[in-house]
Amino acid sequence: MTVSGPTGGATSLGDRIDQANEEVLDRLTGTETTWIGVGVARDVIPGMEPGLILHAGPPIAWDRMAPVQRQSILGAVIFEGLAPDTSTARGLIERGEVRVAPCHEFATVGAMTGATSASMAVHIVENDRFGNRAFCKVVERELQFGVLEPRVYEFLAWIRDVLSPALDDTLKRAGGVKLVAHTARALHMGDECHNRNVAATALLVRDLGPTIAMVAPPAHVGEVLDYFRKIDQAYLGLAMASAKALTDAANGVEWSTIVTALARNGVEVGIRVSGLGMQWFTGPAQEIDGAFMPGFGRSDATPDIGDSAIVETVGLGAMAMANALTAGAIAGGSAQQSIARTRDNMQIVAGRSKSFTIPVMDFEGTPVGIDVRKVVATGILPYVLTGIAGNRPPWGRVGAGVVRPPIEPFVAALREFGRRSA
Amino acid sequence: MTVSGPTGGATSLGDRIDQANEEVLDRLTGTETTWIGVGVARDVIPGMEPGLILHAGPPIAWDRMAPVQRQSILGAVIFEGLAPDTSTARGLIERGEVRVAPCHEFATVGAMTGATSASMAVHIVENDRFGNRAFCKVVERELQFGVLEPRVYEFLAWIRDVLSPALDDTLKRAGGVKLVAHTARALHMGDECHNRNVAATALLVRDLGPTIAMVAPPAHVGEVLDYFRKIDQAYLGLAMASAKALTDAANGVEWSTIVTALARNGVEVGIRVSGLGMQWFTGPAQEIDGAFMPGFGRSDATPDIGDSAIVETVGLGAMAMANALTAGAIAGGSAQQSIARTRDNMQIVAGRSKSFTIPVMDFEGTPVGIDVRKVVATGILPYVLTGIAGNRPPWGRVGAGVVRPPIEPFVAALREFGRRSA
Repeated sequence: MTVSGPTGGATSLGDRIDQANEEVLDRLTGTETTWIGVGVARDVIPGMEPGLILHAGPPIAWDRMAPVQRQSILGAVIFEGLAPDTSTARGLIERGEVRVAPCHEFATVGAMTGATSASMAVHIVENDRFGNRAFCKVVERELQFGVLEPRVYEFLAWIRDVLSPALDDTLKRAGGVKLVAHTARALHMGDECHNRNVAATALLVRDLGPTIAMVAPPAHVGEVLDYFRKIDQAYLGLAMASAKALTDAANGVEWSTIVTALARNGVEVGIRVSGLGMQWFTGPAQEIDGAFMPGFGRSDATPDIGDSAIVETVGLGAMAMANALTAGAIAGGSAQQSIARTRDNMQIVAGRSKSFTIPVMDFEGTPVGIDVRKVVATGILPYVLTGIAGNRPPWGRVGAGVVRPPIEPFVAALREFGRRSA
Repeated sequence: MTVSGPTGGATSLGDRIDQANEEVLDRLTGTETTWIGVGVARDVIPGMEPGLILHAGPPIAWDRMAPVQRQSILGAVIFEGLAPDTSTARGLIERGEVRVAPCHEFATVGAMTGATSASMAVHIVENDRFGNRAFCKVVERELQFGVLEPRVYEFLAWIRDVLSPALDDTLKRAGGVKLVAHTARALHMGDECHNRNVAATALLVRDLGPTIAMVAPPAHVGEVLDYFRKIDQAYLGLAMASAKALTDAANGVEWSTIVTALARNGVEVGIRVSGLGMQWFTGPAQEIDGAFMPGFGRSDATPDIGDSAIVETVGLGAMAMANALTAGAIAGGSAQQSIARTRDNMQIVAGRSKSFTIPVMDFEGTPVGIDVRKVVATGILPYVLTGIAGNRPPWGRVGAGVVRPPIEPFVAALREFGRRSA
C-alpha cells in the first residue's frame, strides 16, 4: 500500500473507502426489518443468562458508572430476585457474582441506562436481508431512569407475563410488522422516532388492535391496548431494535468510515465504525441542551446517556428533525432551527435514506451514514435528540433536548484508519 | 344610516362589521366541541323522518342534480326499504313521495353526495359553549360515491347495528371526546383533517380502544377496531360535524361578513354568511385540479361536491395544508406550494385559530373566518382540499385534489350586505 492515511495520499484509498461506504449505505437504507416477536431475554438473546445485566453505552467499569446507571442496574438485580435490596445487589456486583456488560455486545440496545436482565421482556427484530436479529427491552418508563418502586417491578412483570405473550401471539398471527415501512409512515406524521414516537405507536395499535382482540385472552385485551395509549414512546424500542438490526449487518465492511453504533453511558460516548469492527472509540459524554421539567435544571441532569442514538445512525432522530417540528419545539428550538439541524447533519453523511423522507424538503431522503472523515474534516458533529435522566433521587426523567457527541471518538477512529492503512 | 355599502362609506359600518367578525371569530376558534354519541338519524336529528333524504350542498332540484348525487340518493331510498330498485326509487322522488333536502338545513353535513337517510347511523357532536348539536353520517366509502352494491347496504347496516352501538356505549363510558383538542393534535401529525385524517383516526382508536374492549360485546371488539384500521378517513365525519357545530353557532351575527357554510352539490357551490343568516349564495361548481387514480381523468370527474368544505371554514383542510405536505403531494403539489396555499388563505380571513397551529410556521394559528369582503377585494378565492367523485358507472372515488369556489357567491353576498345597509 502506498498511501499514508485515509484522508490524504493516493486516490486508491479514497476510492476504496467510498466504495465501502456505498456498500454500507446500501445495507443501512436498502434493507427492511421485521418485528417478529417478543420474548423473555434469557430465552431469545444469545449469551444472555441470569447473573448478567446489560447496560447502555460503551463498556465501563462499575465504579466509573453514572449514578443513575448504577441505580438502574441494582434495580435489575432486584427484579431478577438475586437480591432483596440495593445494598445486597451492590455487593453481588462488586464481588463479580453478577456481571455487567454493554447491551451492544449482545445484539441488544437499551434506552437511557439500558438496564436489561435475563427475565425482562424484549422485542425481537430480524434483518430481512441478512437474517441477523436484534433486541430491545419492551418500553417501560421508570427503571430505565433509576426509579425503583414496587410499581416498577410490578409493571415489568406485567409486561413480561401479560403484554409480551399477547403481542407475540399477535405477531405470529399477523405475520410480523415491517418496521422500516412502518417508521417511514410515522415520519410523515410528525415523528422522528427518537424523542417522538406518538404516530408510530398509534399506527401500531391501530394496525394490530384487531388481531390483539382475536388472540389475547379476552380479560387482557383492554389492558394490552391501554399500554399503547399510556406510552407514546412504546415504538422507540422497535425503532431502536430495527436500527440495531440494520447497523449490526452494516458493521465490519473493510475500509468503511461509516459509524455503525453511537452509544452513551452518561460518562462516555462511544462509536463503532464499520471498517473498524467491534472496537469502541470514546470521549466524554456531553451536557444536553434542552428543556427541563418544572423544578429541574442542568444541575439535576445526567450527561448524555442511552443506546437510543442508534436511530440517528440510520437516518432517524435528529437526522429527521425537520419532520418533527413539535419535538424540536419541545426540545427548545424553532421550526427553522429543526430544519437547519437536519441540513447540518446532511454535510457529514455518506448519503440519503431511500425509505425515510422529509416532506418539508419535498420528500428528500433523511441523512444516513455518519462518515467519520466528514465529521473530522468539517468539525460538524451529528445532532442527537434525547431524553434527559436525573442524576440523583427521586430519579426519573427530568427533560428532553438536543446533544452532540464529542469529537474525540471521531478523531480516534480516523487515526486508527490511518494506523491500519499505514 | 349614512353609508352606501359595506366596503365604502362611513367608518361606522366598517367598525360594526369588524366588531361582528371578531365575535364570529371568537365563536369559531374559542369554542370546544364534544363527540357525545352515535345514533340512528331518525332518532337524533330534529326533523329527520322516513321519506326524507338529505344531500350535500345548497338546495337543488332533483332534475338538476349531478348524476352521482342522484345515484347516491336512489341508493339511500333502497337502503331505507322504500323501493326495491333504482327505477322505483326514482318514481317515488319524482312523485314527491320521497323528499330531498340539503343536509345543512338539518344541522347535518354529508361528505361527497351527502346522501343521508333516516335509518343511517350518524355522529352526534355538541358545541360545548352554545349547546347546539350537529350530525354527520358515520364514514362509509361507497354509497357516498354512488356505488350501489349489496356489500354497500350490508356495510351501512353493520355500521348502524354493530359499530354505532359499540361506539355510543364507549362514548357514554369514556365521557365523550373533545374534538377541537383532538383535531389540534392530529394537525401536528400530518393531517389537515379534510383529505388526510390518518393521524386523527389512529389517535382515536388508540384512545378509545381500551374502552371499546371493555364495553363492546367480546365478539364485536375485533371488528369495531378493524373499522378504524381499514378507514383512514373515519375521522372526517367527526371533523365535519365539529365544524358544523361551530359554524351553526357562529351564524346569524348581524353585520358579520364571515362565511359560515361552504357547500357543494356538484352543480353549484353555495355559501352562507353569518350576518346574512340562512340565505344561500351560489355559483357554478368548479372542476377539481388534482391527481386521478389509474385509469381515470378529468372527463370522469363530477365537479366540486360535498359538505366537507365546512372544515375549511374553521381553519382546517386547505387552511392547514402547510401541516399536511403529504396530502398536498398526493393532490399534486410541492411542499412549498402547500405552504404557499395556506399563506394565500391567510389574506382572506378575519384571523387565526387559537387551537389549530402550524409547526412549519413556528406554530402560528391556521387562517380562520373567510371574509367575503376580503375575497372580493383581493380576488383570492379560498383553497379547498377535496376528494373527486366519478360521474358515471362504475362510480366510486376517482381522485383527490384542490379546488376553489367560484367568485359569484362572494360577490352576491357582498351585494346583499350593500342592499340591506342601504
